[in-house]
Amino acid sequence: MDQRMEQQFAFALEVDKLKNIFRQTRLSGHGRRENDAEHSWHIALMAYLFREYANEEVDILRVMLMCLVHDIVEIDAGDTYAYDAQGLETQAAREAAARERLYSILPEDQGAELAALFDEFEACETPEARFARALDNIQPMMLNHSNGGGDWREHGIAAEQVYRRQSRTRLGSEKLFAVADEVIRENIRKGNLTE
Amino acid sequence: MDQRMEQQFAFALEVDKLKNIFRQTRLSGHGRRENDAEHSWHIALMAYLFREYANEEVDILRVMLMCLVHDIVEIDAGDTYAYDAQGLETQAAREAAARERLYSILPEDQGAELAALFDEFEACETPEARFARALDNIQPMMLNHSNGGGDWREHGIAAEQVYRRQSRTRLGSEKLFAVADEVIRENIRKGNLTE
Repeated sequence: MDQRMEQQFAFALEVDKLKNIFRQTRLSGHGRRENDAEHSWHIALMAYLFREYANEEVDILRVMLMCLVHDIVEIDAGDTYAYDAQGLETQAAREAAARERLYSILPEDQGAELAALFDEFEACETPEARFARALDNIQPMMLNHSNGGGDWREHGIAAEQVYRRQSRTRLGSEKLFAVADEVIRENIRKGNLTE
Repeated sequence: MDQRMEQQFAFALEVDKLKNIFRQTRLSGHGRRENDAEHSWHIALMAYLFREYANEEVDILRVMLMCLVHDIVEIDAGDTYAYDAQGLETQAAREAAARERLYSILPEDQGAELAALFDEFEACETPEARFARALDNIQPMMLNHSNGGGDWREHGIAAEQVYRRQSRTRLGSEKLFAVADEVIRENIRKGNLTE
């Protein structure tokens, strides 16, 4: 095996650890917490199936790649819950260090490519990043809603917090935002979200 | 939400169950068993990173889509271990019924598209299917090898069985097969595979 392939396999093995990074979202059927790897699988597949709802024309391969890699930094940085104000303050610094270490395992060209995809996702300025972010927001909401809003109740989340997060969904997909809006209203009525 | 979008969300929620289908492969670091969703994430990402090793030119988006959907039938059919002769006999019938039920949840056009991708993967005749299969074979081998060949020892697997399976890897990628061959030889020497 030459050095290039060795680096590629080293990275492939390293990212296996993403399967041990657990999120706050519970699987449907009131299941266990979801991990980052299976979440990434889910949104990559949903990106393809829901691509007709993107606000702008997107290169769907690039959207799916962002979905597959966007959480890899959490191997080092850990998952930061979307409504954890303290965690969100240090998130950028933790993820920058992780980005540096993890992507340097790959051959330089591929490391740079994946790091750029991660940066693009974070910046949320291209049509692809905006649509990938919309999926990243809507998928946990779909699971949580299927479980009767339990994740929000457990953490005492306010509707305003969810709207703030889902405002990004709107940038990527007005049609998926309309679904999110409906779900939020229903969960306010049911008392799962405080007003 | 119109009927089309309802069907798409129903499918997106249904496939969440893939996260509860566990395989024989253990995660790196002598971890728990791997589930189908995180396995699918892993090989879709590896397909992209290793695409330079495909024997033939491939449409990488189609390879990645096959990686993402190839195991969805196991939601109904369960996982069949690659070296379970009895299970392999009934696998085709179980998976055909699952394919019918699961893909009919989607709007007709998308259901037909994903079912065709699954069929293409199974038939292993196009460059894309062959390369996707190579990844599907090499990824569990990589994890198992990182764990000292424990999966093979646990099940008393013979080198010949592994070679039979990896012959398909060769159709998709001579270069990845060369890696598999090296790994098999090393595990024979170490007594993890019987001769």
